[in-house]
Amino acid sequence: MRVEVVGIGAGDPDDITVRAVSVLGRADVVFLLDKADAAGELMALREDLAARYAPQARVVRGADPDRDRVSPGYTAAVDDWRARRADVCAEMLGELGEGETGAFLVWGDPSLYDSVIAVLEDVRSRGACFELGVVPGISSISALAARHRTTLNQVGGAVQITTGRRLAQGWPDGAEDVVVMLDARCAFLNFPDAEIRWGAYVGMPGEILIAGRVSEVGADIQRARERAREANGWIMDSYLMRKPAR
Amino acid sequence: MRVEVVGIGAGDPDDITVRAVSVLGRADVVFLLDKADAAGELMALREDLAARYAPQARVVRGADPDRDRVSPGYTAAVDDWRARRADVCAEMLGELGEGETGAFLVWGDPSLYDSVIAVLEDVRSRGACFELGVVPGISSISALAARHRTTLNQVGGAVQITTGRRLAQGWPDGAEDVVVMLDARCAFLNFPDAEIRWGAYVGMPGEILIAGRVSEVGADIQRARERAREANGWIMDSYLMRKPAR
Ligand SMILES: C[S@@+](CC[C@H](N)C(=O)[O-])C[C@H]1O[C@@H](n2cnc3c(N)ncnc32)[C@H](O)[C@@H]1O
Ligand SMILES: C[S@@+](CC[C@H](N)C(=O)[O-])C[C@H]1O[C@@H](n2cnc3c(N)ncnc32)[C@H](O)[C@@H]1O
Repeated sequence: MRVEVVGIGAGDPDDITVRAVSVLGRADVVFLLDKADAAGELMALREDLAARYAPQARVVRGADPDRDRVSPGYTAAVDDWRARRADVCAEMLGELGEGETGAFLVWGDPSLYDSVIAVLEDVRSRGACFELGVVPGISSISALAARHRTTLNQVGGAVQITTGRRLAQGWPDGAEDVVVMLDARCAFLNFPDAEIRWGAYVGMPGEILIAGRVSEVGADIQRARERAREANGWIMDSYLMRKPAR
Repeated sequence: MRVEVVGIGAGDPDDITVRAVSVLGRADVVFLLDKADAAGELMALREDLAARYAPQARVVRGADPDRDRVSPGYTAAVDDWRARRADVCAEMLGELGEGETGAFLVWGDPSLYDSVIAVLEDVRSRGACFELGVVPGISSISALAARHRTTLNQVGGAVQITTGRRLAQGWPDGAEDVVVMLDARCAFLNFPDAEIRWGAYVGMPGEILIAGRVSEVGADIQRARERAREANGWIMDSYLMRKPAR
């Protein structure tokens, strides 16, 4: 048995790689792990890619257990959630026959803020026996930089990839540039002198891009974000910020 | 006139995206900007991709001027090099006819430690008139993480992407994980307690992967690196390091 974790890009179907297409073309089973409340658009992209590139495969869906948001310890809550997620994945893998290959479709690149690789390692450490492969994908970060026609780092510089929760604690030392994901609270507003390049639904219908100095465009971003989230019922956004020049 | 900066992945031809393939299929000209002393293998991948996906296009080569390594100010040296590079690019763009589209093939993802986007902006700021598009690619970082079947960040954590030169100044604050590129001096040896996942020629023939605690595998990596560099005449390597657990 073999399991491939396949990055499919962050919303634009053409961001899929030739390798992902060929792995899907040989898969016996496609695994889709979804949050109960996941936005239909996010599920739709994966369903479409499965139908287009793996028409021969059986599709096995699993309900991704909700992370317990009220739990006090962030890491502990995540550990518990992972254990429940491992139960779900182990059950899904039960659909894979001897000698078959299954593919988990993962948003963006599996290496960034995604837990499928870790969960599969957990399932394996419980004794399940399968080979594991990872197919890299275009992350939402690469897509964001491309849409803004910019680079993540400056010449010889460093860039930190972090979360909104972390950024709220201050600008990370030693990085001229930060890329922020998973920010529901607009932590960029703390840095009025920084240059921001923000994007929501990058590569998808309804894409919004805003760039400028935070003091000038920060409130616009906040408003655009709120309006879009209300209109669509969900939002995925991220941004690149450059330290104010001295 | 339109110019597309196309990320082609970091060595594995199958890491190219469907979008890159379609942009190449419509290009009138493919631009290859190469260092005079570039390794033949690196040029070969781009030549192969151009021949396979853009057989209709004219290929225009340019000699990327050498960065003046003895110059005292790193940033100043880069600025001068960029100006000379802009001259070269402007001349290459002269081969593009009215209404045509040209594609610059860029290693990995154009957003990481690559200056083609900046150079084209420089050319534009001198008065050249063309539309600019960027096609994201699989970076060597995503490829490295995939080959080691790991993630770049830990749950809710931050990851800093930096250079060997920077890392030699100390572990960046606020990041549990660092990804290091452009390190010719094995700066990881300064962190014996960290976990390292190192890769050279990732996705290419001769790929080498080594993982473990730096105190245990650091010297092996240094030796393997030296041996491979001597055997091949060039090396491209990068690594992910995790902070020692407390
Ligand atoms: C759980 S993480 C998964 C990231 C994914 N593995 C990747 O490589 O992009 C989800 C976060 O990624 C970012 N994101 C994903 N897709 C995006 C898109 N199309 N536009 C903007 N941000 C996106 C948002 O910050 C979102 O909160
Ligand atoms: C000038 S940077 C270009 C990076 C490129 N834009 C990318 O997205 O990977 C060159 C550095 O990338 C890393 N690199 C590129 N390709 C690599 C590969 N196949 N294996 C390991 N490292 C690689 C090395 O650290 C090398 O020094």
